Amino acid sequence: MSASRRILVVHGPNLNLLGQREPEVYGRTTLAEIDAELTHLAEQAGAALESFQSNHEGALIDRLQAARGAVQGVLVNPAGLTHTSVALRDALVAVEAPVVEVHLSNPWAREPFRRRSLISGIAAGVVSGFGATSYRLGLLGLLAALEA
Amino acid sequence: MSASRRILVVHGPNLNLLGQREPEVYGRTTLAEIDAELTHLAEQAGAALESFQSNHEGALIDRLQAARGAVQGVLVNPAGLTHTSVALRDALVAVEAPVVEVHLSNPWAREPFRRRSLISGIAAGVVSGFGATSYRLGLLGLLAALEA
Amino acid sequence: MSASRRILVVHGPNLNLLGQREPEVYGRTTLAEIDAELTHLAEQAGAALESFQSNHEGALIDRLQAARGAVQGVLVNPAGLTHTSVALRDALVAVEAPVVEVHLSNPWAREPFRRRSLISGIAAGVVSGFGATSYRLGLLGLLAALEA
Amino acid sequence: MSASRRILVVHGPNLNLLGQREPEVYGRTTLAEIDAELTHLAEQAGAALESFQSNHEGALIDRLQAARGAVQGVLVNPAGLTHTSVALRDALVAVEAPVVEVHLSNPWAREPFRRRSLISGIAAGVVSGFGATSYRLGLLGLLAALEA
Amino acid sequence: MSASRRILVVHGPNLNLLGQREPEVYGRTTLAEIDAELTHLAEQAGAALESFQSNHEGALIDRLQAARGAVQGVLVNPAGLTHTSVALRDALVAVEAPVVEVHLSNPWAREPFRRRSLISGIAAGVVSGFGATSYRLGLLGLLAALEA
Amino acid sequence: MSASRRILVVHGPNLNLLGQREPEVYGRTTLAEIDAELTHLAEQAGAALESFQSNHEGALIDRLQAARGAVQGVLVNPAGLTHTSVALRDALVAVEAPVVEVHLSNPWAREPFRRRSLISGIAAGVVSGFGATSYRLGLLGLLAALEA
Amino acid sequence: MSASRRILVVHGPNLNLLGQREPEVYGRTTLAEIDAELTHLAEQAGAALESFQSNHEGALIDRLQAARGAVQGVLVNPAGLTHTSVALRDALVAVEAPVVEVHLSNPWAREPFRRRSLISGIAAGVVSGFGATSYRLGLLGLLAALEA
Amino acid sequence: MSASRRILVVHGPNLNLLGQREPEVYGRTTLAEIDAELTHLAEQAGAALESFQSNHEGALIDRLQAARGAVQGVLVNPAGLTHTSVALRDALVAVEAPVVEVHLSNPWAREPFRRRSLISGIAAGVVSGFGATSYRLGLLGLLAALEA
Amino acid sequence: MSASRRILVVHGPNLNLLGQREPEVYGRTTLAEIDAELTHLAEQAGAALESFQSNHEGALIDRLQAARGAVQGVLVNPAGLTHTSVALRDALVAVEAPVVEVHLSNPWAREPFRRRSLISGIAAGVVSGFGATSYRLGLLGLLAALEA
Amino acid sequence: MSASRRILVVHGPNLNLLGQREPEVYGRTTLAEIDAELTHLAEQAGAALESFQSNHEGALIDRLQAARGAVQGVLVNPAGLTHTSVALRDALVAVEAPVVEVHLSNPWAREPFRRRSLISGIAAGVVSGFGATSYRLGLLGLLAALEA
Amino acid sequence: MSASRRILVVHGPNLNLLGQREPEVYGRTTLAEIDAELTHLAEQAGAALESFQSNHEGALIDRLQAARGAVQGVLVNPAGLTHTSVALRDALVAVEAPVVEVHLSNPWAREPFRRRSLISGIAAGVVSGFGATSYRLGLLGLLAALEA
Amino acid sequence: MSASRRILVVHGPNLNLLGQREPEVYGRTTLAEIDAELTHLAEQAGAALESFQSNHEGALIDRLQAARGAVQGVLVNPAGLTHTSVALRDALVAVEAPVVEVHLSNPWAREPFRRRSLISGIAAGVVSGFGATSYRLGLLGLLAALEA
Repeated sequence: MSASRRILVVHGPNLNLLGQREPEVYGRTTLAEIDAELTHLAEQAGAALESFQSNHEGALIDRLQAARGAVQGVLVNPAGLTHTSVALRDALVAVEAPVVEVHLSNPWAREPFRRRSLISGIAAGVVSGFGATSYRLGLLGLLAALEA
Repeated sequence: MSASRRILVVHGPNLNLLGQREPEVYGRTTLAEIDAELTHLAEQAGAALESFQSNHEGALIDRLQAARGAVQGVLVNPAGLTHTSVALRDALVAVEAPVVEVHLSNPWAREPFRRRSLISGIAAGVVSGFGATSYRLGLLGLLAALEA
Repeated sequence: MSASRRILVVHGPNLNLLGQREPEVYGRTTLAEIDAELTHLAEQAGAALESFQSNHEGALIDRLQAARGAVQGVLVNPAGLTHTSVALRDALVAVEAPVVEVHLSNPWAREPFRRRSLISGIAAGVVSGFGATSYRLGLLGLLAALEA
Repeated sequence: MSASRRILVVHGPNLNLLGQREPEVYGRTTLAEIDAELTHLAEQAGAALESFQSNHEGALIDRLQAARGAVQGVLVNPAGLTHTSVALRDALVAVEAPVVEVHLSNPWAREPFRRRSLISGIAAGVVSGFGATSYRLGLLGLLAALEA
Repeated sequence: MSASRRILVVHGPNLNLLGQREPEVYGRTTLAEIDAELTHLAEQAGAALESFQSNHEGALIDRLQAARGAVQGVLVNPAGLTHTSVALRDALVAVEAPVVEVHLSNPWAREPFRRRSLISGIAAGVVSGFGATSYRLGLLGLLAALEA
Repeated sequence: MSASRRILVVHGPNLNLLGQREPEVYGRTTLAEIDAELTHLAEQAGAALESFQSNHEGALIDRLQAARGAVQGVLVNPAGLTHTSVALRDALVAVEAPVVEVHLSNPWAREPFRRRSLISGIAAGVVSGFGATSYRLGLLGLLAALEA
Repeated sequence: MSASRRILVVHGPNLNLLGQREPEVYGRTTLAEIDAELTHLAEQAGAALESFQSNHEGALIDRLQAARGAVQGVLVNPAGLTHTSVALRDALVAVEAPVVEVHLSNPWAREPFRRRSLISGIAAGVVSGFGATSYRLGLLGLLAALEA
Repeated sequence: MSASRRILVVHGPNLNLLGQREPEVYGRTTLAEIDAELTHLAEQAGAALESFQSNHEGALIDRLQAARGAVQGVLVNPAGLTHTSVALRDALVAVEAPVVEVHLSNPWAREPFRRRSLISGIAAGVVSGFGATSYRLGLLGLLAALEA
Repeated sequence: MSASRRILVVHGPNLNLLGQREPEVYGRTTLAEIDAELTHLAEQAGAALESFQSNHEGALIDRLQAARGAVQGVLVNPAGLTHTSVALRDALVAVEAPVVEVHLSNPWAREPFRRRSLISGIAAGVVSGFGATSYRLGLLGLLAALEA
Repeated sequence: MSASRRILVVHGPNLNLLGQREPEVYGRTTLAEIDAELTHLAEQAGAALESFQSNHEGALIDRLQAARGAVQGVLVNPAGLTHTSVALRDALVAVEAPVVEVHLSNPWAREPFRRRSLISGIAAGVVSGFGATSYRLGLLGLLAALEA
Repeated sequence: MSASRRILVVHGPNLNLLGQREPEVYGRTTLAEIDAELTHLAEQAGAALESFQSNHEGALIDRLQAARGAVQGVLVNPAGLTHTSVALRDALVAVEAPVVEVHLSNPWAREPFRRRSLISGIAAGVVSGFGATSYRLGLLGLLAALEA
Repeated sequence: MSASRRILVVHGPNLNLLGQREPEVYGRTTLAEIDAELTHLAEQAGAALESFQSNHEGALIDRLQAARGAVQGVLVNPAGLTHTSVALRDALVAVEAPVVEVHLSNPWAREPFRRRSLISGIAAGVVSGFGATSYRLGLLGLLAALEA
């Protein structure tokens, strides 16, 4: 089976610290481990997967723009930008491919300002609250959406 | 492996019409098909699964109460009650087991009154927008949470 | 003329008390009298009419689901559920027939929480404030809409 | 039966364009046709009916003031003034006769600023969403209220 | 002294779990024990007391309607319906007898959505925060109100 | 003493009905009587006074524009336009003379939508609640402001 | 004419500084001068006048309570308490005599938190923005109200 | 049984007028009578009771501070300060003993600004709407809380 | 080139005072000068231009209605009606031609109530803040839109 | 160096309990110790310092009024009055000297009603969250401001 | 005429995709074409023009800072940053030259979160809704402002 | 004393312009001068200090991440990001050391959108309004917090 489907995984600010920062909240899995697992999962489904993390909103947008026409779907954890970045939303729309939004924790059980997502309105699906598993579920959902 | 883990799947009002009502929005999969698939998925993971649908808030609460001590996790699609039922929230808490909330569609892309969930605040995880696949992802997430 | 058009009239919680409860507000006409009059009015127009009242949101939804494909229009007085039931709204949409919403009193001249209707957004027409006459006008409007 | 009951019908701004403006939304019936039909309907009920349209809030108020003591009821479609004119509300109260408010379309299914009516709070009844039929139903309701 | 005063006690959703659910929050007294104690207290005051619990909003409304003309006062713990049920409010008004609202916990010290009561506006008195004692105090208050 | 100070009194919509409309609320004094009294009061203070009433926002604005450079102060009862007319506010500013706003009744003891005045922000002073006396006090205040 | 009417003038916090504090805003007239002028004005109208100033909410309330049955009207400038004191409002109601509220400046042209008055809702009349003249106009209005 | 439990009863502004002010609203019982009854009730339960009323927020706070370490519970009717005094809330917390909040009337059936209590969030229990009986119920609830 | 394109320029209330009223804010250019310049500019582009100003909302609506089918575009400065007139909005829509909205000043740098435009939602383009130049830019934009 | 600069330190309600009340939150330093340290710090800077604490809003205002012309700066911890006292704000403005506002704890990490300060808008600087150190920093900031 | 006036054109995130992204919404003109046209237009007016685009908020701010003292005006399309960047607003102010804000589409006809601009409050003028023509009009307006 | 305590000072967007931009608002001290003074102050306290400024949110986050485990405290002036960056907040939390937030000006005396800080909720202390002195006070407060 050819890797005809390509998926871009985009991690927002501070997610490079996964496994180190507040492990009792975010778990002990590192971002590298998550990416490895997602890559494996994608391969099993005959898809190729690239991953990108940045603390820079602009770099995230640059990367998404480069993915236009080059990927069939985007898996994004916008982290703190979820609630504040219209520019990231616009960039996600510009990819012109299904977007799945994931969160490690459950924003509804946290501070009130985390309850508004500027991304959800344009997402094909949203997964939150399962820790690192949110990524796996989000990828499965994205792959299913691409098959539909 | 023994079916030592039991999962209750709870479907809220109008979900019995799945596959018939607005198929262009909600898809053509029926609730029976979803339940069959979830049962199969649970069995593969060595878990037992029961399913319950009702259009009656009270019947849903009765069923959840009966599950206290009898299930290790709840997968719930509260449908229209998501936004209006504190009593359902209280019943879900009373089960004293992890709750995963799923939605077929993406509430953020619909009417404003669908943007407030009274359930999300007590959910271990939330999945929305993937159609029938939301259930599958939610069950996988619930099973993962039980293993953690 | 054949009774080829069937209308379902749905009365929400507490409307069974009509004629007894606060007659100075709601009038002395009973629900049975209203139903009789509506039936007569429908027959004159060559339509058949069935009526259903319940204090149970779930029972109202069950009845509406049973009407899918079986009625050409719904006349509904959601009573107290007007302001609180997304599930009833979803059930009304699922009938896939025009819905007319009626109220005996004028919600705008009552408590502030009665000013938001979750039903009006999906209604073909709304009649309020005329007492028992609201039902008659609503039925006439529904019949006219079916003819258009 | 003498025409002892007189009804004033008041049409707000832009309603003179009925039948021409956006016929797919507002229908093809003209205001003259609606007035003719209402006059006929009133005559059948032994009532006399006068009609007045203006794009000028002040002219509408002048006309309403002239109706004090001269009419037994007012049927008003305030159009765009529904949401913005306290002065029109005050003039309607000053007539000291029952007021019925009608709308061609359903304001709840349109822009958010159309959801607040400054008129409904002082109306005996409100009818909306039935197109030209809203007027007929409103007149019937007004006549019924005058008989009560 | 004859039991000429009859009191209906109405318990809302999930209160049947009292003593079992989160005992550190709601205490270890069961609903049966509370009812027994209230019955005893009522008898001491020469009043008869009936109790009803349901997880179904509709069943609660049915029971309240049956109490019209049959009871002199209502003691109600609306539980989760406190914040969401206009229909229950309407049914309580329809009893045409004084209503006392009680809560085991203090809603002001809990989630923000518990701060709005749709019931308080029509209650003769409200007691909250004393655990099972809230019922006793509420009954005493209701009896005092009936004597005044 | 020469009548070197000229005052324009502007009465908004429906005030021509004073003395007739709801006399228990607005009193039995007519607008002509108020104007006569204000003219007398102004003359005593050596000032000339002109009065203008209209139900037309545009006519009120036209009259105010004509007063630019011709009057030293404006006494205005904007009536229902108080809460809705930015254009009237702009016209009052354009007179380039002190404006005193008066109301017969107390807007704070009426409907919520009467609590926002678009005029007060540019008024030198405001008098409300004294019935016809509000005009007299407002004129005295305006004359005092002109002397200061 | 006997001084059968007694008026209490109540000045709220910081008004003892009148004439000294920000004279460009509040004018150069002192509180003593205002009181003297008001006394003179009252005497001309055959009324007696007492005045009281305090920076203590409690002292103002004590003074108002002492006036129950002893005065026929209250003229109050609640100053900063206007926007924050329900207790002062309750005390003013307890006097059981007409209350006129005055302000030196125009609250609508100042900070947003000055736009809500807890007093206006129970005032017979309100005068604001005329500087020391506000008191004079308020007293005239109060005297007129007592005569009506 | 020794009077080892001491209770402080604190009455807020204007409560000294009880029995005189608006008896149709607040009843004819005086504060002295209420205090006598509460003292008797406390003695029956083997507790000592002191009472304090002031119209001065500061005096109420002073008295509460003096009660630190000297009382085992506080019964408070904050009256108008309920809605406006963070300082009183802080003083009640500083007593470090259970606080029960009581109200004669039902704030939910009065003006909107009475619906926010700054005290309820730190109260062990709240009783409102029973007139003077609210105090008795509140004391019983406080004594029960001390026994628990 | 024939003047096949006709443009209607509509000026709202108080704009007839341009050049006279607050020249430091609105500049010294008169409305006649602006109209002359716009006419010249239109002619250069081969278009014909008519202009209309009124302080009467109704007159503006009448004029817009007369333009239906007679003009290809509308340039409107709604002035104070921008924030308050749904009727004007409806009339602009009824022209069934592109509408460009212009403002002399920048509403975002003025009072908060000027930040909501009821017109912008149906405008093809909006220009604000450039003084008389706003009109020129708006006309150029409208002409460009007609060419597109 | 002469003590030509005088500073008034004002402590609001309940601050006299510092060191006793909730020491785990507010620390074990007493108000006397804080005042001693501030006095020492002021003397080092060649300034004199007076301190005043009261639980009475009115007493605080009286003290501030006495400081007009007598001090060059004010250091104030308004405590619970921060969020509720316009009168205190007005008194602080009336001192006509720079005001520095300090808080022991961080209001942003506490209850929502502590997030609005009525004082900050007129403060030269604000320090919060450092415990007793907040006072020291505030005094240093005030002294620096006086030197600038 | 020397190019003594220099203009900086700043394009925010995602505008580099112009002509490619959603051409039915944003048109088919590329950013390079817009810049070329603007340069030509500037040259005709004797001005020099530089252009800068970035997806990085920080890079946009860096560029604006470099323009301090080097340009006479700024033309900015903040794109998604319009609604979220106070830092960009601060940087635009720091240029100390007139700023004109342009938008291709009409934010008022899009999602609600696009209705608040953090930039408009400091802009000399705003142009929106004309597609690429918005830039041309904005530049003309900026040049006119520089000439005034 | 060894420099065992290391402090990171982080300056947000546009602060590199200090001393140049609006000196009448922000003063004439440059950022270099502030850093020099802070370094000196830290050294006196036996602490080492590093400083970092960027206009890029991402660069600020990168720098803060590099400080994890390497500094004992953070002094941050988030500038325009204060009100808009959840990502910066998350990065500050991730340092796992006390954070002190400083502002040159007083946000409460500026535009409304500057009144919400996303940073204050996680700050150990906040200092604002003292100009460059805010930094000094903040550093002293941070050092004191580290010693406690």
